[in-house]
Amino acid sequence: MPEPATTPEPPYYAVIFTSVRTPADPEGYEQMAERMVELAQEQPGFLGVESARGADGLGITVSYWASEAAIRQWREHAEHLVAQQRGRSEWYAQYELRIARVERAYGFDTEIPTTNR
Amino acid sequence: MPEPATTPEPPYYAVIFTSVRTPADPEGYEQMAERMVELAQEQPGFLGVESARGADGLGITVSYWASEAAIRQWREHAEHLVAQQRGRSEWYAQYELRIARVERAYGFDTEIPTTNR
Repeated sequence: MPEPATTPEPPYYAVIFTSVRTPADPEGYEQMAERMVELAQEQPGFLGVESARGADGLGITVSYWASEAAIRQWREHAEHLVAQQRGRSEWYAQYELRIARVERAYGFDTEIPTTNR
Repeated sequence: MPEPATTPEPPYYAVIFTSVRTPADPEGYEQMAERMVELAQEQPGFLGVESARGADGLGITVSYWASEAAIRQWREHAEHLVAQQRGRSEWYAQYELRIARVERAYGFDTEIPTTNR
């Protein structure tokens, strides 16, 4: 079962990546997307990732990081740079990337008592 | 066609809401979700919203706001409070809500020249 990412107490950072796919190369895209998640998980400062793409084609991926330096380092990772380039030339019709500092977080889980909420 | 939200220059705020649905009441949920988007759009300080739910059941909704005060006000809106309560009792198995300050944003659009990027 998919789950929200388990992240530490704020503050930490979020990269919100909202995209619209082109119809091009669905298999190549899927493969690269999986590889990028795998690779991101190995980076220093990586805290977690959440991803969803709806039937209407809009996708949102939020990755969480310990610091802005960690985000910068990931952004400049050689293999990630290649994926970014192919993203712009082939896979994405449009995207918006936002870097944000998470200030507060609240969770809810039906399997965990909620008396403190 | 769905699109990333059009937001002003940072800084502004994002509410990242990541959820897993219960199997309960899909029609009632859809109706309330649509109503909440409609209502949010009328609130002071609302800047935009993006939403996606994947086939695996994980949903991400990011709403953008001009200030933390605007988020607080929306959080305490009477009709929204009712929806939040029903969300916890019926619709959501689990969620995580994060409030973040957007520091930087970058866009890409195949229909807009990218020479400045």
